[in-house]
Amino acid sequence: MEVRGIHHLGLAVEDLDTALSTYERLFDARTEHRATVPDQGVEAASVRVGESRVELLEPFEPDTPVGRFLASRGPGMHHVAYEVSDVGAAIAGLEKAGAELIDSEPHEGLFGLEVAFVHPDSVHGVLVEVVSPG
Amino acid sequence: MEVRGIHHLGLAVEDLDTALSTYERLFDARTEHRATVPDQGVEAASVRVGESRVELLEPFEPDTPVGRFLASRGPGMHHVAYEVSDVGAAIAGLEKAGAELIDSEPHEGLFGLEVAFVHPDSVHGVLVEVVSPG
Repeated sequence: MEVRGIHHLGLAVEDLDTALSTYERLFDARTEHRATVPDQGVEAASVRVGESRVELLEPFEPDTPVGRFLASRGPGMHHVAYEVSDVGAAIAGLEKAGAELIDSEPHEGLFGLEVAFVHPDSVHGVLVEVVSPG
Repeated sequence: MEVRGIHHLGLAVEDLDTALSTYERLFDARTEHRATVPDQGVEAASVRVGESRVELLEPFEPDTPVGRFLASRGPGMHHVAYEVSDVGAAIAGLEKAGAELIDSEPHEGLFGLEVAFVHPDSVHGVLVEVVSPG
């Protein structure tokens, strides 16, 4: 599979405004997108840290993937997203290479990205998202 | 502080050879460095995933930072390293901005990098390393 590189690092946070202010203060981060996504139960912001990108995720429903993560592990790194040119081809390749997929089809993720998730059991405990800017 | 972007994502793994083989198989990763670092109790590899870089860390001593992480949280994302031009200036700026530092002075990290760590309590649960290729 051809991976371009890390598209973003996804972080679970308890309070989005506080976290944004920390990233601005410590790392000179600039917010590029911010949205409330009811069907995922998160309020999310995409911020640039230098050339890279961090996605801050505050769950507003406890019974959501990020809400459950926060309850069991506390705030911290939640997933890493690798950018690919074609999410459908990438997940077909990953499946062929033996990875367990969470999403068998690409779907629309945050901020208009086309995404699919790979199960952390296939990647030594790391939740991996493959994304294409679409 | 001027951050260039994510230098690497540090991952705690149980077995370095198995993890390297997974990253090659799933993400076409190429190893750029590999070393055993007795004073840190880790065997480590730096691998390229597209344009990005992932650092795989297998502790061979349980009573080390990565060993304790693995015992308590299991394998997964351990730290994120941001590249800066000057680690000393970066940690001075971080301290001034209220961050709690783990290292009050830059020191030599893996693969010849100049590094310092910031306490995860200052960054919403994320262990942050600032690095300069030196």
